[in-house]
Amino acid sequence: MSDRIRIAILGYGNLGHGVELAIRRNPDMELVAFFTRRDPAALKTLTPEVPVYSVDKATERKDDIDVLILCGGSATDLPVQSPEYAKYFNIVDSFDTHARIPEHFAAVDKSASESGKTALISAGWDPGLFSLQRLLGNCVLPDGHDYTFWGKGVSQGHSDAIRRVEGVVGGKQYTVPVAEAMERVRRGENPELTTREKHTRECFVVAAPGADKQRIEDEIKNMPNYFADYDTTVNFISAEELEREHSGMPHGGFVMRSGVTGENGETKQMIEYSLKLGSNPEFTSNVLVCCARAVYRMNAAGCTGAKTIFDVPPAYYSAESGEELRKHLL
Amino acid sequence: MSDRIRIAILGYGNLGHGVELAIRRNPDMELVAFFTRRDPAALKTLTPEVPVYSVDKATERKDDIDVLILCGGSATDLPVQSPEYAKYFNIVDSFDTHARIPEHFAAVDKSASESGKTALISAGWDPGLFSLQRLLGNCVLPDGHDYTFWGKGVSQGHSDAIRRVEGVVGGKQYTVPVAEAMERVRRGENPELTTREKHTRECFVVAAPGADKQRIEDEIKNMPNYFADYDTTVNFISAEELEREHSGMPHGGFVMRSGVTGENGETKQMIEYSLKLGSNPEFTSNVLVCCARAVYRMNAAGCTGAKTIFDVPPAYYSAESGEELRKHLL
Repeated sequence: MSDRIRIAILGYGNLGHGVELAIRRNPDMELVAFFTRRDPAALKTLTPEVPVYSVDKATERKDDIDVLILCGGSATDLPVQSPEYAKYFNIVDSFDTHARIPEHFAAVDKSASESGKTALISAGWDPGLFSLQRLLGNCVLPDGHDYTFWGKGVSQGHSDAIRRVEGVVGGKQYTVPVAEAMERVRRGENPELTTREKHTRECFVVAAPGADKQRIEDEIKNMPNYFADYDTTVNFISAEELEREHSGMPHGGFVMRSGVTGENGETKQMIEYSLKLGSNPEFTSNVLVCCARAVYRMNAAGCTGAKTIFDVPPAYYSAESGEELRKHLL
Repeated sequence: MSDRIRIAILGYGNLGHGVELAIRRNPDMELVAFFTRRDPAALKTLTPEVPVYSVDKATERKDDIDVLILCGGSATDLPVQSPEYAKYFNIVDSFDTHARIPEHFAAVDKSASESGKTALISAGWDPGLFSLQRLLGNCVLPDGHDYTFWGKGVSQGHSDAIRRVEGVVGGKQYTVPVAEAMERVRRGENPELTTREKHTRECFVVAAPGADKQRIEDEIKNMPNYFADYDTTVNFISAEELEREHSGMPHGGFVMRSGVTGENGETKQMIEYSLKLGSNPEFTSNVLVCCARAVYRMNAAGCTGAKTIFDVPPAYYSAESGEELRKHLL
């Protein structure tokens, strides 16, 4: 047992819950602690034999933990937590504010380089697996165009935005890739696509009794940043239907690289990667867990500081030996 | 100019030709030599300013070459060439006899470890990019099933087999994935698929004047290993039609990982990767060239011996810095 990789979870929301479940499917790993900002006694996990500690006690347990998986949000949690905990732990986070990745990387790198720990940031599927596909596509087909489409899936941020509209008591938003745009890319047309041409937004909204639905719809459709640049549809439904049909967190998307080869660029080449996810947080958690294995291995190999999925030799994600991998997966 | 990576090509068939073209699209690289077993004076390349040497002279030029890309075949060339040239050069090969990869790896590793060179074997798309997707799929979704489908594309081996049948003067064979089988996988059914259920084989055959077409068709369809286990169709066409419609080398395929997450495996998750290639050798060559960049970098980092795509930190495939990659691709 003692040679299993000892994992701890900080933050028990959707992601922490997913990590808890993912570790069960990876027999070389062991969940050894939860850390929470809530009252530890009040936190009911699915794994009651694993102790729950207050986050204040985390550093006291640093010698019992091989990798700490940070399951907080990118807006306010991770910018503070990742640089802080990289002083004491190998960490994995899923920081996903694309524009702020360089500064987050720099802050985490400073901590982890000083402590001799390994810190993998921005793990998940985008950033994460999608980033890796974009990188590979760019390297393999240097003369080409990148396309990333998201969905069909629930956007948490857009769902939150809907729920902030006055008179709305519940809502979910689906980001939907435009099939015709994807077909144009697949045909090798290399179209320049506007925001509106790539995705539509589909909203399911529960209005308060007596609320002005026309005003709600207009307000949603004209909301800057979130909806104004898209073709948006608003469907009013009952609270029961919202609960019954829209309580899941499916997501997915497509990364395409459309390129040319040949003496005069006469040969079309197309790479396409896609995810169809029944649960976005459960899938993201699975990525975090195999990244934790990679972080553990990289640290053991003396490879310290901040890392991203671009820096990880893929064999490190696997519990199998190089020999086994070459035999049955190469 | 002198800080460009100096590449040499050994073997000037479809692959060597593709590498020659690929290097033109990678400005951080420079093609410095061709080596051939033919008469160097008789070899007409697309880049006449690059010298052509007899293969016997290769080792004499070892100090002028950063990476040697071996463009020979897996049956007889690479098992000899890769271990031999890894004594003197960083190398990349596209060894693709899956069953013999372990022994090839061992032989190359011995040479490269002793010489302090880096040797990336089995680069391309399968083995290669497809292997990488299989590995990632297995790690991210440990509870799941793998599926690889090939095509639609020309199989060189099967085309050669057709042409060996008596009375056949020309022929091309397309491997075609069965759409219904792929749909079953995409629906998450996790089917057990037989060889026959996964692919069909489509042959275009030019018969000699007066040849017995029925006998040719029967002989093709019943050929063990190549066709007997598949639903095979044989179309007789003219030499002109073969030349006009079937002279390309398109290929492609699909790697799928169908898995589950959640407390009781109730959540379906699907990963799909696909290639649609106008030219198989040109695409493979592009992969070899970015692998050459990675080999050069790994060797500079002191990472020597035999490697596969499983061992390469993806950032090494790119000419851009980690900072640039994080900024625009992560």
